[in-house]
Amino acid sequence: MEGPADSGASSLARLPGKDPHSHPGDVSVDFPVSVVLPAGGTGERTGLQTPKQFCGLMGRPLISYTAQAFERVSWIQCVVVVVATESLALMRDIAQRYRHSKVRVVPGGATRHRSIRRGVQALGEPEEQAGAGTPEVVLIHDAVRPFVDEEMLFKIAMAAKEHGAAGAIRPLVSTVIATSSEGYLDHSLERVKYRASEMPQGFTYEVIHQAYQKCTDYDLDYGTECLHLALQYCGTNAKLIEGPPTLWKVTYKRDLAAAESIIKESLSRSSCVLTGDRPAALSLAASLQTAFAAQHMDLDIIPNLQGDNANYLLKEWNFIQISVNGSLSEVKALLASLQAAERALLNPVVVVWVHLSGMDVPSIGETAAEPAAIRDLASPATGKLENLLLYGVHLQLCKDTESWERSVLRLAEITSALIRDRSPALVGQLLQA
Amino acid sequence: MEGPADSGASSLARLPGKDPHSHPGDVSVDFPVSVVLPAGGTGERTGLQTPKQFCGLMGRPLISYTAQAFERVSWIQCVVVVVATESLALMRDIAQRYRHSKVRVVPGGATRHRSIRRGVQALGEPEEQAGAGTPEVVLIHDAVRPFVDEEMLFKIAMAAKEHGAAGAIRPLVSTVIATSSEGYLDHSLERVKYRASEMPQGFTYEVIHQAYQKCTDYDLDYGTECLHLALQYCGTNAKLIEGPPTLWKVTYKRDLAAAESIIKESLSRSSCVLTGDRPAALSLAASLQTAFAAQHMDLDIIPNLQGDNANYLLKEWNFIQISVNGSLSEVKALLASLQAAERALLNPVVVVWVHLSGMDVPSIGETAAEPAAIRDLASPATGKLENLLLYGVHLQLCKDTESWERSVLRLAEITSALIRDRSPALVGQLLQA
Repeated sequence: MEGPADSGASSLARLPGKDPHSHPGDVSVDFPVSVVLPAGGTGERTGLQTPKQFCGLMGRPLISYTAQAFERVSWIQCVVVVVATESLALMRDIAQRYRHSKVRVVPGGATRHRSIRRGVQALGEPEEQAGAGTPEVVLIHDAVRPFVDEEMLFKIAMAAKEHGAAGAIRPLVSTVIATSSEGYLDHSLERVKYRASEMPQGFTYEVIHQAYQKCTDYDLDYGTECLHLALQYCGTNAKLIEGPPTLWKVTYKRDLAAAESIIKESLSRSSCVLTGDRPAALSLAASLQTAFAAQHMDLDIIPNLQGDNANYLLKEWNFIQISVNGSLSEVKALLASLQAAERALLNPVVVVWVHLSGMDVPSIGETAAEPAAIRDLASPATGKLENLLLYGVHLQLCKDTESWERSVLRLAEITSALIRDRSPALVGQLLQA
Repeated sequence: MEGPADSGASSLARLPGKDPHSHPGDVSVDFPVSVVLPAGGTGERTGLQTPKQFCGLMGRPLISYTAQAFERVSWIQCVVVVVATESLALMRDIAQRYRHSKVRVVPGGATRHRSIRRGVQALGEPEEQAGAGTPEVVLIHDAVRPFVDEEMLFKIAMAAKEHGAAGAIRPLVSTVIATSSEGYLDHSLERVKYRASEMPQGFTYEVIHQAYQKCTDYDLDYGTECLHLALQYCGTNAKLIEGPPTLWKVTYKRDLAAAESIIKESLSRSSCVLTGDRPAALSLAASLQTAFAAQHMDLDIIPNLQGDNANYLLKEWNFIQISVNGSLSEVKALLASLQAAERALLNPVVVVWVHLSGMDVPSIGETAAEPAAIRDLASPATGKLENLLLYGVHLQLCKDTESWERSVLRLAEITSALIRDRSPALVGQLLQA
C-alpha cells in the first residue's frame, strides 16, 4: 500500500501543490531569483470576453495555476504579476483568495515589453522585494503557460546566471515560410536550423535591467522578444534550453479545454477508498483498485482515517467511502474530517459515497429515500465546503456472479468518471451501479 | 420556432454533416478536384500507443472526422487516404463503418513525401478514380486536421487552379529563432515577415505530379513541404491564403482533448424538446429554452414528431422528452422513431427523458421503480442503437415557487451538462432535479 507521499505526478501534468519534490535530486538555487509574469493580454484570440489568463478552469482562474507553479518553488522569492490597470483589483482578489503570498500585483504598460519593463523595475523597488533585495536572476514567463515545472525553472535560472540570459525553446510544429508582399511563397525555412522561442526565459538582473534602459521606443512598442533585447543591447547570446511540450501557451479557446483536461487528469490520478472492516467492502475495494489501475488511476485502500492515514486529509486526493448496509453516517464523518483538517487546497476534492446494500433488503424501499438525503448533504457541502464535490452511487449485492461482476464494473466506470469529470451539475446525485 | 434546417453551426466548429451550406454563397468548383490525405504518422508526440489519426474522439477515430470534412463537399470526387501497410485493414474498416464512400485507401511509403507521392500516383490510376478521370486540382491535407471547412477548401482549390499551387498559412504563435551549433541564440526572425505553413494545400495535377517526378531522393526522405517542391522543381510560387485557427494540427495528447471539446460544443448546439400538449410540460420547456439560450445552446420546442417535425429525426440533434405523470411510453416511442428513421448519423444522439411528476402523488413510491426501468431501456439501446445515449431526470412539481424555480434551474443545469458531456458511464441513470 502506498502512502500519500508517494503520489507519482508525472512530468506531463505536475500541478501546483501536487509534488513538492519535483526538482532534480535535491539541487536548489543559492542566489536570489524573482519572477515577472506579464498578464496584461486582452485575449482576443480565444474569442472570449474574458482575457484568457482570467478564464476559469473548473472555477479557478488560469493565472492562479500559473502563479502557483512559481509559488511552490522554495527558492523563488517574489512573483510580480503585471496586469492592465482595469484588472488590478481582480488580480489582487485572486492572489488573496488562492493565498498566493509571493505575488505582488503591479499595473502594466501599453505593450508587452512596457509591462515587462515595469515588472523588472518593480523588482528593484524596496516595497516589492518583500525584504529580499534586488534579485540576481529574473525569470520572465507568460501568465498563460500554467504547466511550467520546477525542473525547467531550475535549468533556466542556472543557465541565466552562467550566461546572462537563457530561454526555453521547442521544435517547430509547422514549416515557417517567408511571404512576398503580394502574398506568394518566397521561400521556406529549413526546419532543423530554427526553433520556436517559448517561455520561461531568465536573465541576470543586470542584463535585463540594462536592456530595458537602452532599448528604443520602437522596441518597446513593436517588439516582443526579450532574448532579442539582451542580444542587441547587452551583446548577450542567450543559452537555449529545450522544454517539454506542456510549456505551450494557452492561445485559443480550444487551449482552455486542453489545459482543463491536463488538470483533470492530474487531479484524478490519486484516490483512496475507505472500507471500514466489513469483508464485502474490502473485496469491493480490491475490485475497484484493479479497474482504476487499468485507467492509470491510483487507488489506495485504507480502513479509515485513523493514525497515519489522517495524512490523506491534507492532500489533494479524492475519496471513496464504502458503506455496507449503512447510513450516511460514515460519509458525514468523512466530510467533517475534511472540513476540520487545516487544508490549503486549491482545487475541490471529489467524494464518492458508495452505498453497498445487502441481498436481504428489498432495494426499492431502501434506496428510495436516499436521493434526497445525499442531495441535502451535498447542498450545504457545496455552500460551506466550497472545495468539495459529493456524489453517491448505490450498488446492490447480488448472488448471481455474472450480474454482480457487471455491477462492480459499472460502479468502477461511474466512480472513475465522476472523479475524472468533476461535473458540478451532478453534485448530490445518487447513481445506480 | 426554428426548423431543423436553420441549425446555425458556426465556422468555429463546422462539423461534418452538420452544415450542408457552408461554402460561400452558392459558388461551386466546376473542375475535377480530388484529395490526398497522408495518414501514415506514428503519433510519437502524443505519448499514446495508437497513432493519433486513429485515436477515438467519443469513440470515433479522428481520421473519420477529417475524411467526412471532404466527403460532404459535393465537388470533391475522391479522397485517397495513404496509410502504413499495417494500418490498411484498420483504415478500410473505418471507411466502411462510417460510410466514407469517396475514400480509397492505399499503402504509403516510408516518409511523408513518399506517401503523398504514392497518393498522387493513385489519382492517376484508373481504379482509384471512381470513374472521375485524373483530377485537375489535387488538394493535400493532414489526417490530423479534422476541422477544415468547405470555404477554405474552395479558396485553396480556386487559387491552385489559377496559380498552380496554393497553401494555407497562419500567423506565428511564437517568435522563431535561429540557433548556433552550440545551442545559443543566433538571431530572432522578424515575426511580420514569416508565417506558419499549414494545410490544406492545393496544386494542379500537372504541378504536383511533375514536382514528385523531378525531386531527389533526399527531398523524398528529408523534406516535408510540398509548396517547396512546387517552387523548386516547377518554378511555381504558391499563393498563400490565411486560414482560421481551427486548421491547427492535432499533435499532442492535449490536442485530442481540444478537438473533442470542439466536437462536443458543436454536437450540443442544437436540441429539441418534445412536450406533448400538457400545459405543465410547455411551460417547463419554455424555462429550459431560456436557460439553454444563456449557454449558447439552441432548443426548439415541438409537441411531437408528427408532420414536418419528423425531419428532426434525420438531423444530428439532441432530444429531450418531457413526460407529465407519464410512463416511459413516450420516450420508448421516440427511441423507436429514431431507430426507424433512416439516419446516417456519425455521432451518437443524446436523449434525455424528463419525468415531471405531480404534486398529489408521493414521490417516494412513484420514483423508486424508475431507475431500473430507464436502465433497462438504455441497456438494449446502447446495444442495438449504437448511436444513442439515453439519460433520465426526475422532477417533482411543487407549489412553493422558490423551490420550484430552483428545481427547474437544476433540471436545466443537469440536462445541458448531459447533452454537452455525453458521458457513456452515466447512460441509463435517472437523476433528480
